[in-house]
Amino acid sequence: MDNFGDRLSAAIEEKKSVAVIGIDPTLDRLPPALQEMVDDPVNKQDALEIFGKGIIDAVKDIVPAVKPNIAFFEAHGIAGLMAYITVCAHAHSNGLIVVGDVKRGDIGSTAAAYAAGLMRAPAKAGKLANPFQIGPHDCVTLNPYLGYDSIGPFIDEAQENGQGMYILVKTSNPSSEELQDLKLENGQTVAQSTARLVNIWGKAMKGKSGLSSVGAVVGATHPEELAMYRELMPDTPFLIPGYGAQGGTAEGIKGAYRKDGTGVLVNASRSVIFAWQKENSPQDWQGAARRAAEVMNQDLNSARP
Amino acid sequence: MDNFGDRLSAAIEEKKSVAVIGIDPTLDRLPPALQEMVDDPVNKQDALEIFGKGIIDAVKDIVPAVKPNIAFFEAHGIAGLMAYITVCAHAHSNGLIVVGDVKRGDIGSTAAAYAAGLMRAPAKAGKLANPFQIGPHDCVTLNPYLGYDSIGPFIDEAQENGQGMYILVKTSNPSSEELQDLKLENGQTVAQSTARLVNIWGKAMKGKSGLSSVGAVVGATHPEELAMYRELMPDTPFLIPGYGAQGGTAEGIKGAYRKDGTGVLVNASRSVIFAWQKENSPQDWQGAARRAAEVMNQDLNSARP
Repeated sequence: MDNFGDRLSAAIEEKKSVAVIGIDPTLDRLPPALQEMVDDPVNKQDALEIFGKGIIDAVKDIVPAVKPNIAFFEAHGIAGLMAYITVCAHAHSNGLIVVGDVKRGDIGSTAAAYAAGLMRAPAKAGKLANPFQIGPHDCVTLNPYLGYDSIGPFIDEAQENGQGMYILVKTSNPSSEELQDLKLENGQTVAQSTARLVNIWGKAMKGKSGLSSVGAVVGATHPEELAMYRELMPDTPFLIPGYGAQGGTAEGIKGAYRKDGTGVLVNASRSVIFAWQKENSPQDWQGAARRAAEVMNQDLNSARP
Repeated sequence: MDNFGDRLSAAIEEKKSVAVIGIDPTLDRLPPALQEMVDDPVNKQDALEIFGKGIIDAVKDIVPAVKPNIAFFEAHGIAGLMAYITVCAHAHSNGLIVVGDVKRGDIGSTAAAYAAGLMRAPAKAGKLANPFQIGPHDCVTLNPYLGYDSIGPFIDEAQENGQGMYILVKTSNPSSEELQDLKLENGQTVAQSTARLVNIWGKAMKGKSGLSSVGAVVGATHPEELAMYRELMPDTPFLIPGYGAQGGTAEGIKGAYRKDGTGVLVNASRSVIFAWQKENSPQDWQGAARRAAEVMNQDLNSARP
């Protein structure tokens, strides 16, 4: 299978979009017709699947990727996780890149177990995941606190299957400063150190596009830092949260792109999937999501190099 | 419900043991009779449940806690996760403290979703988890890279339900040095900075025993550092991996205890649950696990202040 970095670049060019839509279904923001279903677990699973698949159908021809966050499904136990699998599979079978936002981080044989469960089945089968694995994922998000021991097993799986990963470097939330902004004796911050590690870990996974399959999460809420992170990680795909709801702007993201305009996916979740609330169009929640994604595309493309 | 730190101390005194047994069922190390079952998903679920429950039954009267690592269950998808719930519930109903080794780390509403799914159901119900949530857990492991935004929602849940958490501070694996040992300009390491944060976050959650419900993971493979971490986190329960298989010793752990001998749980996984391999007693895998746990108890108690 093709290298993930190459697949990512091709999907972005095909859709003319750097947007990834986060599928984070908090129940109390689902459209009213679906909210009515959530009282029993079986209907709750249906509601999560209808919503997730509905968002995917609404945006599948105008964005390259979706990012279901497993937390919002795991919150509903086994029924929720079955919905997660259905939603990932629906995105996958519609040709979207599936970013599994799982933020895993463990070591050795444990990391290998995570990697096998989250990464192996879909690509090996070349089609939908078997229902006894979690996914299918084209890539997952990972936490770097435990170092390479927690990343290596994912790189091994990813290399075999043409998959990738995004490692947390500098996140978009206020308290990211508590650890990530700590100043080291060499003048760097912890996040800059993580960026250097991510850059090294990804060197062996570059595709024809020059882009690595080992990516980084860098928040849009730190626009002044994005060019610096791009310099530290010249060939790393960036996954950029914090656009829209959290205050990041298309202009602010400019520094994150590689010179040729590649290397960036910008995430929006609530501002797109719950756009029906802002529009006050509960019957047309899919149309509202599509319109929000279109506005996002226009906005991001206007500031893309 | 009682404070988690108090419950932990009471359980340790009752069992006269500071051991927590990690339930990490890698399939190729299951006893042969169970290995034969793993080819189809339904039987695989049975095999994981029989093994997990069998280990719990073998050690439940001689240790205060077990720590199932969800990675080894998630690796088998929905069937595996159903086994995880069964194993946690079995431990819970046998009065053991269940440490859910899930190493979660996400922010805001996402962290709240994780906390709801992993922490809410069991304690609120006061009995077995409902099968549509993940757990029951008395506490979970968390990753600090995102700062308090990723911890606060768990503290909120835990406070309401008498639960707790263990936050990764200094892990037992070799590459923990890549981030955790970075030297800051103030002379501390990143892990020491994390320790200070954990100490602050836990101040509001102290019970009658003086022990907080916000704990720390500190590896046994760094014996020279344990007393230093105890000084930084005087009232924090430590969860100590790396004993046995990874080279940590009872003597090396001495510095981790509070002066009164409390505040420590020492984990062993493979050396106990797969003790049948070392004994070459595949028919008596439960007896082998019990004997290994007894030896561990003797060893740890001999060096406990």
